[in-house]
Amino acid sequence: MDRAKDSAGDRSEAARPRAAGAGSDFLQLSLGDAPPGGITEWLARRLRGAIADGRLPVGSRLPATRVLAAELRVSRGVVTEAYQRLSEDGHVAGHGRNGTVVVAAPVGVAERADGPREEGGGPLFTATPGPEAFDTLRTAPARIDLSPGAPDLAAFPRAAWLRAERAVLADMPATSLRYGDPRGAPELRRAVAHWLARNRGIGCEPADVLITSGVAQGIGLLADALRREGVTAMAFEEPGSLGVRQHLVAGGFATPPVRVDEQGVRVDDLLACGAAAVLLTPAHQFPTGVVLGGERRRALMRWAADGGLIVEDDYDAEHRYGRPPAPALRAMLGEGVCYAGSVSKLLAPAMRIGWLIAPTRYREPLVTAKRFADLGNAALPQLVLARLMESGTLERHLRVLRTRHRRRRDVMINAVRAHLPGAVVHGAAAGLHLMVTFGEDAPWDDRALAEAALALGVKAHPLSWHRQLPGAPGLVLGYASSGTAEIAEGVGLVGKALATLR
Amino acid sequence: MDRAKDSAGDRSEAARPRAAGAGSDFLQLSLGDAPPGGITEWLARRLRGAIADGRLPVGSRLPATRVLAAELRVSRGVVTEAYQRLSEDGHVAGHGRNGTVVVAAPVGVAERADGPREEGGGPLFTATPGPEAFDTLRTAPARIDLSPGAPDLAAFPRAAWLRAERAVLADMPATSLRYGDPRGAPELRRAVAHWLARNRGIGCEPADVLITSGVAQGIGLLADALRREGVTAMAFEEPGSLGVRQHLVAGGFATPPVRVDEQGVRVDDLLACGAAAVLLTPAHQFPTGVVLGGERRRALMRWAADGGLIVEDDYDAEHRYGRPPAPALRAMLGEGVCYAGSVSKLLAPAMRIGWLIAPTRYREPLVTAKRFADLGNAALPQLVLARLMESGTLERHLRVLRTRHRRRRDVMINAVRAHLPGAVVHGAAAGLHLMVTFGEDAPWDDRALAEAALALGVKAHPLSWHRQLPGAPGLVLGYASSGTAEIAEGVGLVGKALATLR
Repeated sequence: MDRAKDSAGDRSEAARPRAAGAGSDFLQLSLGDAPPGGITEWLARRLRGAIADGRLPVGSRLPATRVLAAELRVSRGVVTEAYQRLSEDGHVAGHGRNGTVVVAAPVGVAERADGPREEGGGPLFTATPGPEAFDTLRTAPARIDLSPGAPDLAAFPRAAWLRAERAVLADMPATSLRYGDPRGAPELRRAVAHWLARNRGIGCEPADVLITSGVAQGIGLLADALRREGVTAMAFEEPGSLGVRQHLVAGGFATPPVRVDEQGVRVDDLLACGAAAVLLTPAHQFPTGVVLGGERRRALMRWAADGGLIVEDDYDAEHRYGRPPAPALRAMLGEGVCYAGSVSKLLAPAMRIGWLIAPTRYREPLVTAKRFADLGNAALPQLVLARLMESGTLERHLRVLRTRHRRRRDVMINAVRAHLPGAVVHGAAAGLHLMVTFGEDAPWDDRALAEAALALGVKAHPLSWHRQLPGAPGLVLGYASSGTAEIAEGVGLVGKALATLR
Repeated sequence: MDRAKDSAGDRSEAARPRAAGAGSDFLQLSLGDAPPGGITEWLARRLRGAIADGRLPVGSRLPATRVLAAELRVSRGVVTEAYQRLSEDGHVAGHGRNGTVVVAAPVGVAERADGPREEGGGPLFTATPGPEAFDTLRTAPARIDLSPGAPDLAAFPRAAWLRAERAVLADMPATSLRYGDPRGAPELRRAVAHWLARNRGIGCEPADVLITSGVAQGIGLLADALRREGVTAMAFEEPGSLGVRQHLVAGGFATPPVRVDEQGVRVDDLLACGAAAVLLTPAHQFPTGVVLGGERRRALMRWAADGGLIVEDDYDAEHRYGRPPAPALRAMLGEGVCYAGSVSKLLAPAMRIGWLIAPTRYREPLVTAKRFADLGNAALPQLVLARLMESGTLERHLRVLRTRHRRRRDVMINAVRAHLPGAVVHGAAAGLHLMVTFGEDAPWDDRALAEAALALGVKAHPLSWHRQLPGAPGLVLGYASSGTAEIAEGVGLVGKALATLR
């Protein structure tokens, strides 16, 4: 660049008479475009144009005349007069203290509805659900939602969250609002380390904790690191979570199935498939609810000692009813396990905050992956959550949830017994959902059952969504985020749907 | 799975006498492990062990005796007695209403400090900065931070944010806390569409908006989609942002440089390099501050019409002083442009909220990429931001910022004139930073200048960080997030550092 010229350019810009640079962000109005002597009509025309093409939709507010006049460096009367002309057209109306609001647009310009995207038209519960399957189910209309995956959201501690946020906003230095540590806010990493030590038996330092946008992101970051090592397969529980498996497949992995029995994952299957890594839900297997047994834990320990990597998805371990806590594998195996957790089942999935405790060799690659993914989680929610964890509020919330969830679970078990004859309930001692199976010889498909239930206004997951191999038909039914009356009615409607298939 | 057995298993678990299942999440205490008749001593030993191995660090609180006794299903006296023994050891102390707190751990177990990771030891401002360069600079100790990239963070509207959050928490249905639309909350997508129409001249529908965790994530998502099309190079402004270029390189792209002159990016360079895509900062080029000229815009329009893709990083367009707004390229070129923006320079980088308006053909792949990246942004901050945008609070905040920033800019320009003789100031008419260059013939390296300034307690970016080709040495100096006294002092210290090199 020409040094002298550029320098002069900047100086002359600063010295130029003010009106030449006059303009507003609002509609990018630049006074240089206005014909001399016709500023009012020019402004009115620009405003009409913006209303016509939708840039100023009905209901939007025009800037205060004082503000717009100052930005354009014209007298306030010019702006007032232009607004007046639009008011006479019927495009805007003065609303006293509320300012001037757009009330009508030329016919034919309406804002496009922002509904769900168009669907392919076929049945929702297809044999090989695509990446949009959960979105389609989420936006499908239904009165009762028994799909699994969330705690009681009506119990979300709104008042405590707001109090903690007020305290954070009062205390936080402005520097906390800059780009931060991609590993997460130090306050939250400390709180998570304490939480895991206290509630999951995992000894780790704040420096070992990587804050993520939930387990979904954590798995994606790890997939990056593993692919660079040449790992192309991650063994997967059978049955096992469709959602998690979709993330692994999107991350470039094959997901060879390893069967789950009443002791948890079968280590002989794992050895046979030859994969170098496996994703497990040891504390409460999804969807069966099985707790990984002691013999299996010891066998996995030997497998990990030989170089295998266990990815532990500890998704709902804190929710248990009348059974002792199942220790995390990470607490026993340490470096052989990459541990992933989140607040999705403790507070709400929409928080998008989770954590990874990774083996040392993956720590730096994971920090780099997180940095390039999004430069780290947002600061404010991290600081608020850290306060809720350190003050004991989250532990108290968990106790409240447990009481509510247990009642809902009992209602669901009773409703299944009453309305789904022949159904077998699995995994009721912990978690947020039940797995229900029907006989292997049932002459219908569980996707047809889920489809029939949806037609009656009830959402549930067909068990086959969570299978790669054939197996007994069934449903996965979440009880935690619905009221007891809804649960009873919803299971009753599933019973009606079942009757139409038999 | 054996149906009959599993069913029986679950039923017997529910019916089992309660004490057998007694246990607490706290330290995973399971009464089954306690010797008969020795529960108190067993509990005290478990607590001492947890204090010794760091699971209960100094300052942490023990559960209330009532709560722990209920979870373990023992009498409260057992827990009180165990706590009493630890108190006698000097490990814990009763704090009245604050409960029982750990006050001392056995010697030798201290929490590892959570400071910056160890550095390589060499100079911070290396010739080819690695992915950790910005982290290292961020954590380097310095009294005055003139690195660019943030608005005035002390002006962050904390009270308005808290008010909006209170309103959101009062109104929001519990269903907003479930897994949501990966494209973002409908409320925020509508608010962003209105904001872009009103402030950046971009006509788009809410359905066109993809909410991201900032421009950094947006670029990563787009990189995925482009790589699948076989695009392996993204032309890059020279000079241009090191941070953004690192993200492109991490996304697998070559970044052939296209030179920037006083009219903005040179389209002849772009044609010559043959890349199918280019990343541009048209409204206020980083770091030069040049506005893309009309002739160049028309030439880019022809290039895009021939199939070229422009990625428009509209990073700080809203900040301008005495010059008319520069329209977004997306407003002129529509489908040829993938537009990326964020609140990083409007509110704070630590918010991690941004948006993409992509050409139609990339829209579905980008939604899929966002889904698998993190299942969508967190709900609460999106809803709060939507309120601040729709109520006009964000526009008012921008006006407040502009007044403060202009004053700081003027102080910095004067300080540069006073303390950096021979320096030329570029790009002062808009933005949050200045670029300062010295003669091409300066006999020193700007990394040495930045290093010397850091030694005197001032952070700034060497211009060469933002170059791929040789060029005049310089600095990039942010003025927006420092007070006027700091700015004057900081530039004075840079002058002292400069004197040591000459």
